[in-house]
Amino acid sequence: MAEDNSIFIGNRPFMNYVTGVVMQFTTKGAEEVIVKARGKFIARAVDVSEVAAKRFLEGSVGVKDIKIDSEEFENKEGKQVRVSTIEITLEKNK
Amino acid sequence: MAEDNSIFIGNRPFMNYVTGVVMQFTTKGAEEVIVKARGKFIARAVDVSEVAAKRFLEGSVGVKDIKIDSEEFENKEGKQVRVSTIEITLEKNK
Repeated sequence: MAEDNSIFIGNRPFMNYVTGVVMQFTTKGAEEVIVKARGKFIARAVDVSEVAAKRFLEGSVGVKDIKIDSEEFENKEGKQVRVSTIEITLEKNK
Repeated sequence: MAEDNSIFIGNRPFMNYVTGVVMQFTTKGAEEVIVKARGKFIARAVDVSEVAAKRFLEGSVGVKDIKIDSEEFENKEGKQVRVSTIEITLEKNK
């Protein structure tokens, strides 16, 4: 799948992300959209997916797959830090 | 599955939950443990699952299934509120 079907959740206003997901399906005709987030934004990624799929695209889009994982990186103090990630794949119902 | 294999993530210290998951598998011999959370605790449920499965039970436990959903309830002002939920099913590797 093309990378532009991914939406990465961060600090911007909540409805920006919901609209982004909805428009991928409606205006751009995407079959799948992947909602991605790391750390504290994981709860928000679930909210965005639920609101997009259940309120705005009810009956036409569902959750196909959810993956969780960990990323390790070095912080400013040179210490290894672990952060959780999530990828929620939404799919147009057949 | 028996209800006591579920661990509900909240405000208690992070390692309490990790230890709870690990002990379900090791001491109590559970085949599956379900890590559940609502709202802002969803990110924490992912952290608990990742740390338990990858750091403490590496190679012996994996993610079997992840479900997300929404719950509606009435808040103190009588307004309908939506909250996201997650259920992460961890499973002993066969």
